[in-house]
Amino acid sequence: MPQPDHISVLGVPDAGTLDDDLKAIWAKCVEKLGFVPNVYSTYSLRPQRLRNFMAMYNEIMLSPSGLSKLEREMVAVVVSSANRCYYCLVAHGAAVRMLSGDPELGEMMALNYRVAKLDARQRAMLDFAWKMTTTPHLIGDADRDALRAHGLGNEDLFDLAETVAFFNLSNRMASATDMMPNREYHDAVRSPATPAAAKAKKVPAEPGAAR
Amino acid sequence: MPQPDHISVLGVPDAGTLDDDLKAIWAKCVEKLGFVPNVYSTYSLRPQRLRNFMAMYNEIMLSPSGLSKLEREMVAVVVSSANRCYYCLVAHGAAVRMLSGDPELGEMMALNYRVAKLDARQRAMLDFAWKMTTTPHLIGDADRDALRAHGLGNEDLFDLAETVAFFNLSNRMASATDMMPNREYHDAVRSPATPAAAKAKKVPAEPGAAR
Amino acid sequence: MPQPDHISVLGVPDAGTLDDDLKAIWAKCVEKLGFVPNVYSTYSLRPQRLRNFMAMYNEIMLSPSGLSKLEREMVAVVVSSANRCYYCLVAHGAAVRMLSGDPELGEMMALNYRVAKLDARQRAMLDFAWKMTTTPHLIGDADRDALRAHGLGNEDLFDLAETVAFFNLSNRMASATDMMPNREYHDAVRSPATPAAAKAKKVPAEPGAAR
Amino acid sequence: MPQPDHISVLGVPDAGTLDDDLKAIWAKCVEKLGFVPNVYSTYSLRPQRLRNFMAMYNEIMLSPSGLSKLEREMVAVVVSSANRCYYCLVAHGAAVRMLSGDPELGEMMALNYRVAKLDARQRAMLDFAWKMTTTPHLIGDADRDALRAHGLGNEDLFDLAETVAFFNLSNRMASATDMMPNREYHDAVRSPATPAAAKAKKVPAEPGAAR
Amino acid sequence: MPQPDHISVLGVPDAGTLDDDLKAIWAKCVEKLGFVPNVYSTYSLRPQRLRNFMAMYNEIMLSPSGLSKLEREMVAVVVSSANRCYYCLVAHGAAVRMLSGDPELGEMMALNYRVAKLDARQRAMLDFAWKMTTTPHLIGDADRDALRAHGLGNEDLFDLAETVAFFNLSNRMASATDMMPNREYHDAVRSPATPAAAKAKKVPAEPGAAR
Amino acid sequence: MPQPDHISVLGVPDAGTLDDDLKAIWAKCVEKLGFVPNVYSTYSLRPQRLRNFMAMYNEIMLSPSGLSKLEREMVAVVVSSANRCYYCLVAHGAAVRMLSGDPELGEMMALNYRVAKLDARQRAMLDFAWKMTTTPHLIGDADRDALRAHGLGNEDLFDLAETVAFFNLSNRMASATDMMPNREYHDAVRSPATPAAAKAKKVPAEPGAAR
Repeated sequence: MPQPDHISVLGVPDAGTLDDDLKAIWAKCVEKLGFVPNVYSTYSLRPQRLRNFMAMYNEIMLSPSGLSKLEREMVAVVVSSANRCYYCLVAHGAAVRMLSGDPELGEMMALNYRVAKLDARQRAMLDFAWKMTTTPHLIGDADRDALRAHGLGNEDLFDLAETVAFFNLSNRMASATDMMPNREYHDAVRSPATPAAAKAKKVPAEPGAAR
Repeated sequence: MPQPDHISVLGVPDAGTLDDDLKAIWAKCVEKLGFVPNVYSTYSLRPQRLRNFMAMYNEIMLSPSGLSKLEREMVAVVVSSANRCYYCLVAHGAAVRMLSGDPELGEMMALNYRVAKLDARQRAMLDFAWKMTTTPHLIGDADRDALRAHGLGNEDLFDLAETVAFFNLSNRMASATDMMPNREYHDAVRSPATPAAAKAKKVPAEPGAAR
Repeated sequence: MPQPDHISVLGVPDAGTLDDDLKAIWAKCVEKLGFVPNVYSTYSLRPQRLRNFMAMYNEIMLSPSGLSKLEREMVAVVVSSANRCYYCLVAHGAAVRMLSGDPELGEMMALNYRVAKLDARQRAMLDFAWKMTTTPHLIGDADRDALRAHGLGNEDLFDLAETVAFFNLSNRMASATDMMPNREYHDAVRSPATPAAAKAKKVPAEPGAAR
Repeated sequence: MPQPDHISVLGVPDAGTLDDDLKAIWAKCVEKLGFVPNVYSTYSLRPQRLRNFMAMYNEIMLSPSGLSKLEREMVAVVVSSANRCYYCLVAHGAAVRMLSGDPELGEMMALNYRVAKLDARQRAMLDFAWKMTTTPHLIGDADRDALRAHGLGNEDLFDLAETVAFFNLSNRMASATDMMPNREYHDAVRSPATPAAAKAKKVPAEPGAAR
Repeated sequence: MPQPDHISVLGVPDAGTLDDDLKAIWAKCVEKLGFVPNVYSTYSLRPQRLRNFMAMYNEIMLSPSGLSKLEREMVAVVVSSANRCYYCLVAHGAAVRMLSGDPELGEMMALNYRVAKLDARQRAMLDFAWKMTTTPHLIGDADRDALRAHGLGNEDLFDLAETVAFFNLSNRMASATDMMPNREYHDAVRSPATPAAAKAKKVPAEPGAAR
Repeated sequence: MPQPDHISVLGVPDAGTLDDDLKAIWAKCVEKLGFVPNVYSTYSLRPQRLRNFMAMYNEIMLSPSGLSKLEREMVAVVVSSANRCYYCLVAHGAAVRMLSGDPELGEMMALNYRVAKLDARQRAMLDFAWKMTTTPHLIGDADRDALRAHGLGNEDLFDLAETVAFFNLSNRMASATDMMPNREYHDAVRSPATPAAAKAKKVPAEPGAAR
């Protein structure tokens, strides 16, 4: 099994040495998900940076927004596909499968989102995510107007943009640290399920899932 | 479930109208695998071309060679990753999982093969596959010599090259026809298994599996 | 004269050691064309693969199709131009000159097809060939619809796609083996001629020309 | 003067309507810098996201680290150069000029960092920043080892990586919102100065400068 | 101050050894501008080539044309931005600031011209300059027609094209010789000014300014 | 014959209206070569620019230099290949064939110079030409040192660089004006010949050939 055994090539501190607030999060993760997501462990090398990362992550992915949680995960996977980020494609691919109950949707987002039959609004968001990831300097009014035509307002545009931007950060952290995904993600929701049933399996696709 | 319901946007003839030799292959597929691979159905629009495709495919992927069948499938997936071909990543990703019993290996080949801990010979083959796919005009003696240093002879180099070349053909046929993979591939061997056990499930990852 | 003297850097078997069916093809080539195309010699390292290659090649380039033989050769050269494949540009550039009697057409296809004054249907086919070669993952319904608007049906689209796909295979085989073109191609039909006169010169631009 | 007059095309709330903690930050900015950085105003459309952004920014750019503050700003500008981000090149180009007192250094980082005569450790960090920005999927052990050879440890590598990653986020937010830099940055420290003198001018190049 | 101290890595002849016509130009530069532009010094390694370069430069940038001198400088900077040429961005960025009196305009041209609010004719010229620089083989009738729609005639198109072409030459000469800009350019017109006032400062942004 | 009939889409003045010095050059061209090169006719729309272009061209391609005339033409063709410039590939491909007497050499330079068996110094010059054309911002000391190792001095480096730079200008002028090559180039020296014999045919591959 050639997936490397390390969590991060920069090393991971012993969990027993972490500050109490982080230990509490670790405990909640194990209770709810069965494991601590490897992105937490990787970031625990620099504890305050971990706290900032979790705060930003949770706000972007879990707070109220004009984009559904599934849509935000779809964006996450498409950005990670453009950047070919192994960690995020595995972890957030699982999140798409879990939130949708549709394993094929996760695969399409990860491999080539253009094959999916999506509604025009979602397709426009993913096209925007791809362009903003690969050629951000070319983004212009026409790109924003295409989204406004599908009903996105200023706050929706902000939230979409920040989701794209955030995964351009986290993809690069994963590549720079050679971060490996928890093995539990690989087989989560590989057969069609109702989203509720998928969630009941408690396979955490997300750091924030332990919030 | 947004994976399109079509097999190919160019349409697929009624299987009942096919020539007898093709009907026999269809029957053998159903018997052995439970279904006819969609690449066969897509190509049956042009029956003689299907026969040529099957002949070439079977020789490249299944005949004796200095590359193992698993290695040929790994090459297939890495080429398909460079080309972002949904059909081939799904079908041949399943083949890697089945032949190796290692679901993580399939994911790494599809998403970013560079994260995998492989032996140096396999890594060199995959680097060659990537370069030959993305910038074939830059392939030179240094690239071939890197493979020879790992023991590949002239016939091995030929077989590796033809495998890479073939998936550059089939990836493009899949994209041009918007070919959709059989749904059975998606959940095949998503948990670790011995290769023998994986194969016993008879989920066919390959057209040639029905040979 | 710095064109390398080898046919393929992987070596070429002595023609006297080939199977009888291949010897017969070699003889027919010499009789009809004056030489054996180097792609045959290169592939003869792996005889069954040669047979499969010839079968596929002949079907794609020579069988009845909605695309004329000249159009298929134009597609071949444009794909080879995108991939900067020396062998195929020389051999199939000669084929375009021979089939059209127009040496300038061959040069434009090889160097930058966009300068040619073609009818809109041919231009659309070549644009499709370029995109399918360089960014196959971006091919979508709009690209196919542009061709349908010029009257291409499903079988025509299939044949165009397979021609593009095939030269993405053969370009890469030529690059991987450093395959050198037969020198006879270089000066074939360099002055305007009627296609019939060009063909009468019997300079074979094609392996299949010996069929 | 064709620099657009807007701060963000998504609109900016009236500062008088902000929460008290943000009003206090606004006041401190005006006191210390003479203005509120436009990235704050842009983000104030989504107040909690602004708080998270400021927390992450301040930790990455201002907290103790093996990279000097100037080095972190140099990395910021090189990432922004790769992404051609107008806002960040103007704002952080000013920061490099201010922290170094060297206006030419700021220009070289923004326009093509390879022309600068830097020590080998800094050059290696900037090469890493460029590669991690443009082809993150190609980052591997050799890239990290090149930095370790210059004395960077695991925490230094983490901090460098997070700086690169963060500006890949903020560059994209600026492009997505068409964020315009405060005009004060343009003429800050355009003549050589000691860094102390440059700072005494209190032209804030940084949101965090108001911390 | 890490801007290299050399003018050109290929070396520069002692000015005292130059031919009299060149000495006269050197003297006029010092009188009018305070210094000899480094591109002159670099080219003086090959005196006749310098004369040809000056003749072409002066005609393109200073002779009567349908494009204003400022517009030609804007084109020069946008081409240099695409090519990431340090010398030309510094020298011609200064020229844009001087001719316009608008320091922000110079920065936008150098960093990402798409953010500038320009009239549609100027935007179309800069889009053409970018495309002609980065993918000249894709320039076609549609690109020229877009300019004609803004009133450009054949001579205007010629002049625009030659300006773009010339900076594709000079950018590459600067990169190949590691040519460093005169330090005087860096702080020229960094605060808004009337163009007349800017020019009165006599900071020469241009070789031709000494004509 | 789909090569367009125009010389330049920007139009060409009646030769009878040209200034006397240009008429004299036209006459000499017809006398020596049988025709006026189309690049002259294209540029005659702007007569002074034509004079500057001819002066620069003749100095670069025909004056004494450490690079032979054939080597300069090889560089011209390789640059034009990178830029996919139809006019220059046809005209200067013919020049390579004429100066070398080797039609295959011209084809290799135009189609993929890497296949040619050249001496290491020539190969290094062509690699430099390709890199300086496609990614000039990446040229650094290592690239120049590779040429110095083959004996190139500062003036040789200058001449090589200016040749590369010049064809980056002329390629773009040809693309911008849709300049068509004189038809005489197409069949010039398509069979091996001694260079002397090739030249005796007086097919002018070069504007400067009429000097």
